[in-house]
Amino acid sequence: MDLRPVFLIIGILLSALALSMAVPAIVDAVAGNPDWQVFSVSAGVTLFVGVAMALTTRSAGLRLSVRQAFVMTSLSWLAITFFAALPLAFSELDLSYTDAFFEAMSGITTTGSTVITGLDSAPPGILLWRALLQWLGGIGIIIMAVVIFPMLRVGGMQLFRMEASDHSDRAIPRTARIASSIGVIYLLFTLVLAFAYRLAGMTGFDAVAHAMTTIATGGFSTMDGSIGYLDNFAVDIIATFGMIFGSLPFILYLKAVQGNPSALWNDSQVHWFISIVGGTVLVVTVWLWLSGGYDPLQAIRYSAFNVVSIITGTGFATSDYGQWGGFAVPAFFFIMFIGGCAGSTTGGIKIFRFQVLYSAARTQIHHLLQPHGVFIPYFNRRSIPDDVIVSVLSFFFVFGLSFALLAIGLGLLGLDFLTAVSSAAAAISNVGPALGAIAGPSGTFQSMPDAAKWLLSGGMLLGRLELFTIIVMFTRPFWRG
Amino acid sequence: MDLRPVFLIIGILLSALALSMAVPAIVDAVAGNPDWQVFSVSAGVTLFVGVAMALTTRSAGLRLSVRQAFVMTSLSWLAITFFAALPLAFSELDLSYTDAFFEAMSGITTTGSTVITGLDSAPPGILLWRALLQWLGGIGIIIMAVVIFPMLRVGGMQLFRMEASDHSDRAIPRTARIASSIGVIYLLFTLVLAFAYRLAGMTGFDAVAHAMTTIATGGFSTMDGSIGYLDNFAVDIIATFGMIFGSLPFILYLKAVQGNPSALWNDSQVHWFISIVGGTVLVVTVWLWLSGGYDPLQAIRYSAFNVVSIITGTGFATSDYGQWGGFAVPAFFFIMFIGGCAGSTTGGIKIFRFQVLYSAARTQIHHLLQPHGVFIPYFNRRSIPDDVIVSVLSFFFVFGLSFALLAIGLGLLGLDFLTAVSSAAAAISNVGPALGAIAGPSGTFQSMPDAAKWLLSGGMLLGRLELFTIIVMFTRPFWRG
Repeated sequence: MDLRPVFLIIGILLSALALSMAVPAIVDAVAGNPDWQVFSVSAGVTLFVGVAMALTTRSAGLRLSVRQAFVMTSLSWLAITFFAALPLAFSELDLSYTDAFFEAMSGITTTGSTVITGLDSAPPGILLWRALLQWLGGIGIIIMAVVIFPMLRVGGMQLFRMEASDHSDRAIPRTARIASSIGVIYLLFTLVLAFAYRLAGMTGFDAVAHAMTTIATGGFSTMDGSIGYLDNFAVDIIATFGMIFGSLPFILYLKAVQGNPSALWNDSQVHWFISIVGGTVLVVTVWLWLSGGYDPLQAIRYSAFNVVSIITGTGFATSDYGQWGGFAVPAFFFIMFIGGCAGSTTGGIKIFRFQVLYSAARTQIHHLLQPHGVFIPYFNRRSIPDDVIVSVLSFFFVFGLSFALLAIGLGLLGLDFLTAVSSAAAAISNVGPALGAIAGPSGTFQSMPDAAKWLLSGGMLLGRLELFTIIVMFTRPFWRG
Repeated sequence: MDLRPVFLIIGILLSALALSMAVPAIVDAVAGNPDWQVFSVSAGVTLFVGVAMALTTRSAGLRLSVRQAFVMTSLSWLAITFFAALPLAFSELDLSYTDAFFEAMSGITTTGSTVITGLDSAPPGILLWRALLQWLGGIGIIIMAVVIFPMLRVGGMQLFRMEASDHSDRAIPRTARIASSIGVIYLLFTLVLAFAYRLAGMTGFDAVAHAMTTIATGGFSTMDGSIGYLDNFAVDIIATFGMIFGSLPFILYLKAVQGNPSALWNDSQVHWFISIVGGTVLVVTVWLWLSGGYDPLQAIRYSAFNVVSIITGTGFATSDYGQWGGFAVPAFFFIMFIGGCAGSTTGGIKIFRFQVLYSAARTQIHHLLQPHGVFIPYFNRRSIPDDVIVSVLSFFFVFGLSFALLAIGLGLLGLDFLTAVSSAAAAISNVGPALGAIAGPSGTFQSMPDAAKWLLSGGMLLGRLELFTIIVMFTRPFWRG
């Protein structure tokens, strides 16, 4: 396989990453924090490697075969994480490289698990870098979901091929235009959220950092106590809506801006997402009210924020829902898997897959009753091709299997059952905090053994890249052909 | 819908159940235990209802439509459980009807969860009735897997349609002949196991009772400490092999007896089952040896027995594996879902579904790499039809969803996380003991709230009848016509 086009793209991406390191460098320099040197040196190293890779392979061109696209996707996320971890490793936080890599992976995959305590007194550069990683990871995954995954057809993402997408030369400029328009929308959402957070009482710095990690459904905060530390009702409401905005298909925002807002209102994935979130919030609210000793308004506030945060895989917390009692733990465990819509910043199984699974199960039941009838499953009022159904169902199976193996692996490393299964779920669904005293919303992943952090980092990447993108590279046919 | 043929079959089954109640009645009478009256009265009531149902509907004939077959299947298991619980409720154990129903459902579905303590001093009639329920449930599910499920095509069971099966009049006597031959094989296995247990040192009564619950992969014991109480290496070995025998497809034993033993050796489902069990036993053995303080022989003994018991969903225990430490808990949790082969007495997802899922995922990966290639998934050297793949994949999804809802329901009733999720898994996979102090191998389900027992009973039936048999009855198209 000719890896030159792959290295060319990775070189370009690393150069961009190096430039973005300038932002925390400047902020730290202005704040008088010596870490500005760490960011500058890391930027220099990353830029050198990136430019060198791009220059030595520039003759290759940007056209990729399917195999090259798989390698490029997996390697680019790995390479970015490797270099993004450098400033974390060498900053005054004095993290081990394992911890730095874990934190960077958690950032770039918009997971939000952290190994850092003492955020409240951490230098601004580091805090901004963590937020920036999630923000870049968020727009990165949206672009991939719109441009790359439908082409790679992983896990049923071929459902979202753009009507006009083809391999002709006209497709590339059109795709680039769509990608940059989505980038502008993403930026606008971030600015609006930052403005709203500022109005609600956050400092300017916190407002920007949280706006970036909210729209990315990432969940990194600048405070150890996450957003709950502020205990600010307005902030809670802004964050709740912000996380929902980050969970809807960004391509539909683009259509809405282009004069077709009904694309957003009439999309069945959006309906399902809102219904699932609404239903879960309602059940948890009623339960908190009736048996948790909360008054109705408090119950809605805590339920809405934390349920939305976990379903969307953001991972902010305003309360340790693990302490809410029996029902909350299994409920929060299972909703971790749900995720948001395809083409959003969320991870997890995602809503459209539940729709396809539901549709397939429904068709199945009709078929049981009328063995000779013909029943067609639908998604968004269009019939679902057979290969999409098998793709989605295989995804579900492989997701379950990966989750189980990850949890068993964590058990082997000595973690207790709740920590092991919930951390596995939180990693593979890109949620962030897990459940229990260690990895729950009040804890951090710091105390885990290094091997567990590497396993979890792998789980985050696996989940972020829709599993098959990575798994396919470990199969024989990939290397044979 | 004409329910007369349904009632006719249920009437016949209840009459047979009533006759089998005579066995514990006689045993208790011989032992001088007053419970013989309870069994006699229960038998009388059940016989009266059964005969009355059969007589009033005898004109209906035994031909069933697909809808009637679904109703018959679900209602017959429910009706049998209802009446089978009577002697448990009125015996000197003095169980509430909830407890008696739970115990009967756990018996007839070969689950093996119990609410009874003090088995060691319980009257022989009750102990025999529990064993008999599992034994009847075991042969019942084998017959259903051979005769009914392939016809109903639930969860991919259409893979096991007999080559010559059709709706012609010749099919019925042929099916009856196959069913009775399998019954004879089942009986022979039971006798051999009883003989072996007796030789190994069990009392005659215990040998018969354990033989019945071993071949049924049921797991009820006559001792609170289960088989581990005896601490008898020979018994452990017999039970381990007995559980494996109960987990293989009984139709292949029939073929072997009919002069085609290679049907058993060459069956890919058998290979997979043996490999999965062998691999898991090996890993757990090594782990127990290296980090559990067991010597190698002990490690193999405890690993083989308990891993086989849980994978096959039997539920005997010779050690509280929940105390083996970090790794064992998630490992035993996830292997609960596996189950044995189709057409055996085991529950769970079952091996053939993993084969189909693996095959589908593999085909999927080939397809990702060569979008225009044609790849065909195989099972046992035959291509798998598309509808089977979707059936199996839907089963997996519905299994996951049912498990999650059951676990959340149990959480809502106040159970802790480990107890809730492992009890849900143990019920729906028909395993028996769950994990943790309450429902683990050293505990019983006695202390759970009544609502939890009803939920778990429902979970057992759902799992036993391959989910769709029950779920289909709760859908609109079923009742629309």
